[in-house]
Amino acid sequence: MEESHQIFYGYVIVEKGLFKTVGKGSPSSKEIADADEVIDGQGKWLMPGLVNTHGHLGSTLLRGAGDDMPLMDWLKQIMWPNESRFDKETVTIAAQLAMIEMIKSGTTTFLDMYHLFMEDMAELVIDIGMRATLCRGMIGLCSEEEQEQKLAESVKLYKDFHGESDGKISIALSPHAPYTCPPPFMKRAAEEAKKHNMMIHTHVSETRGEVEQHVKEYGKRPIVHLEELGLFHSPCLIAHGVHVNEEEMVILKENDVAVSHNPISNLKLGSGIAPIPEMVSKGITVGLGTDSTASNNNLDLFEEMRMAALIHKGKQENPSVTNSLKTLEMATFKGAEALRISQLGKIRSKFKADFILVDPAAPHLTPWENNRVHSHLVYAAKGSDVTDVFVGGKALYSNKSLVKLDEEKILYEANNKLENFV
Amino acid sequence: MEESHQIFYGYVIVEKGLFKTVGKGSPSSKEIADADEVIDGQGKWLMPGLVNTHGHLGSTLLRGAGDDMPLMDWLKQIMWPNESRFDKETVTIAAQLAMIEMIKSGTTTFLDMYHLFMEDMAELVIDIGMRATLCRGMIGLCSEEEQEQKLAESVKLYKDFHGESDGKISIALSPHAPYTCPPPFMKRAAEEAKKHNMMIHTHVSETRGEVEQHVKEYGKRPIVHLEELGLFHSPCLIAHGVHVNEEEMVILKENDVAVSHNPISNLKLGSGIAPIPEMVSKGITVGLGTDSTASNNNLDLFEEMRMAALIHKGKQENPSVTNSLKTLEMATFKGAEALRISQLGKIRSKFKADFILVDPAAPHLTPWENNRVHSHLVYAAKGSDVTDVFVGGKALYSNKSLVKLDEEKILYEANNKLENFV
Repeated sequence: MEESHQIFYGYVIVEKGLFKTVGKGSPSSKEIADADEVIDGQGKWLMPGLVNTHGHLGSTLLRGAGDDMPLMDWLKQIMWPNESRFDKETVTIAAQLAMIEMIKSGTTTFLDMYHLFMEDMAELVIDIGMRATLCRGMIGLCSEEEQEQKLAESVKLYKDFHGESDGKISIALSPHAPYTCPPPFMKRAAEEAKKHNMMIHTHVSETRGEVEQHVKEYGKRPIVHLEELGLFHSPCLIAHGVHVNEEEMVILKENDVAVSHNPISNLKLGSGIAPIPEMVSKGITVGLGTDSTASNNNLDLFEEMRMAALIHKGKQENPSVTNSLKTLEMATFKGAEALRISQLGKIRSKFKADFILVDPAAPHLTPWENNRVHSHLVYAAKGSDVTDVFVGGKALYSNKSLVKLDEEKILYEANNKLENFV
Repeated sequence: MEESHQIFYGYVIVEKGLFKTVGKGSPSSKEIADADEVIDGQGKWLMPGLVNTHGHLGSTLLRGAGDDMPLMDWLKQIMWPNESRFDKETVTIAAQLAMIEMIKSGTTTFLDMYHLFMEDMAELVIDIGMRATLCRGMIGLCSEEEQEQKLAESVKLYKDFHGESDGKISIALSPHAPYTCPPPFMKRAAEEAKKHNMMIHTHVSETRGEVEQHVKEYGKRPIVHLEELGLFHSPCLIAHGVHVNEEEMVILKENDVAVSHNPISNLKLGSGIAPIPEMVSKGITVGLGTDSTASNNNLDLFEEMRMAALIHKGKQENPSVTNSLKTLEMATFKGAEALRISQLGKIRSKFKADFILVDPAAPHLTPWENNRVHSHLVYAAKGSDVTDVFVGGKALYSNKSLVKLDEEKILYEANNKLENFV
């Protein structure tokens, strides 16, 4: 697909991590001779790499550890007791496992919010070669001294890593959520972000109860409150936004606040269904996120696209409120916009050469012709149809083999870690 | 998994199409010596084959032909103009393609309602070796003579094929829907089913508009009306049941009417979300169906399980209204119950030996231990994780290769058929 979403037989030439040429038909013999490497993708679909705008890689080993439970039970019985015991090795294995799953299912860019070992995480992502926005999640239910320490760690992470890996690493500032960050701390986070020119990422209005509690405590809804606290003076991406009213959507649009739509996690935790078609029609930038495997339970953005395309049709009893093309945009360049990464998410000259190949020789993608490709990618494809993944023109996954990560070893290590879990 | 849903290291012995032994640990050397064939599934998960309780295989080539459209536009612009041109070859290729997709994603039993070439379909299913309930869909908007001819065709199909293929073929009687079958014809269908001891399958209350129109026309809701017309005097399975009220659920339960829950199709067409947890809590038998690829757009029951497990949590804002175990039951022995096929859908001695192997050596199924397997199968697995499929003890898919169907040829033929489409 190119910008206009035309589908055609063609080729791309990559130079210095960017698309230099997006051409129709076959490359010329001179273009072939000039290339350092030629990859034959004949018969496959080439599309932008997928962008995952919300996740927590460190908790990947909690996949399936507790399902079907009310949120607070799940947090208290499963998440917190385990996360409090995570050491560096556990988090590293979890992050590697998550990256294997993401790469194999066509994700090239992801956002990770986590509170442990984020410097190691940055080194790891650089080593593996993915594009990522990393943020040290900060819970503000602690002393002012600890709050300031968390802010200082976040700013240090930014200074050390923002723009590293040929620009593939971005660092954002991440107060966890209004219900874990009292207003004075939110205000401090907003100040620090403004001062250092950092993007902000935070959870907002995930559950109905959380919004009701906020109104009870502060007399106003979370997004109204966050605007007052100055959080939207910096580029901001909120996760979830499930329980957002009309007035709040206007605030999001006016402040150019982007939203990570995480439909599967929102369903699985019983949070609800976000008013995404309404947000999109108001011009709010919406990307797609998986959240962590502990509440999804996979990181396959093809699954997330399908859910995002289907759920709102059913909720509104109207099949036209979303479509496959808008959903593909959400999973690619709208996600890039949400992360404030420029020139990403389209197959277009001068854009970053993050792209994937999908093999349509599968029963669930048959029959196909050009005008069914968008549909098949959203309504029928699986992450396992991806055969090749490139980030900045470099192959991370080639003909169904990971270039760098040792999958067998990491899967083994991940399974062996389970004995430490409660 | 065995009946009690325990997960253990074990083995099965199959004889005459049934499980003879379901054992823990390894088989004895005598058991191995006595076997005609030994298959090593070490490291894989063995589970019952999946049961798809609603579909239309003949329209598989319309996958992705029209999405995101209001129902009537879709029917008038896409479905009807194309289906009216379908010849036997088109329907045969479509059915073969559908069976390839179903087998590869772990489905062993399916229901097919279609109006064209059902005798050929029966022959084809027998040849391929799947278990199926077939019904000639009857639209009653025609002369009485034509109505009677359709009934006669259905009864003939029953007499010719019911119980064939070692009992793997069942034939049901299928008036299409209340809005396409006037009451006198519904009544005749009920009489014929009763007379020949046939199961009945019909679409009911798929959309809100359809129910409102029915009430307007007949002064009563569809399920109340169908009960009066005698349709529930025979074993009956209804598809969809999206817009069903409390009174109607009581009628369904009292008459032991089963429901095929088709959540993805219901979302995609904007029909809505069926009250499945309410039905299940009332003791109504609910199976899972994909509907056709024209409204899904895939036949992967792992996708359908995931949707069935997630959607009701989000709609009700309660993560406990469904769980992975209940969802697995729906996709296996509850589906079998809905189709009135006895001794099917459990790994249990004397049950039909329809089972599949799933390879957990994948990042999205890692980490795992026994108490996470149910969760992973529902919330993380893909059809592409299935490596082996057995129906009545016979392999249809072995180590990721189809035993009988020529996949490459059928995919090629399916793609080549597209030029005939409008």
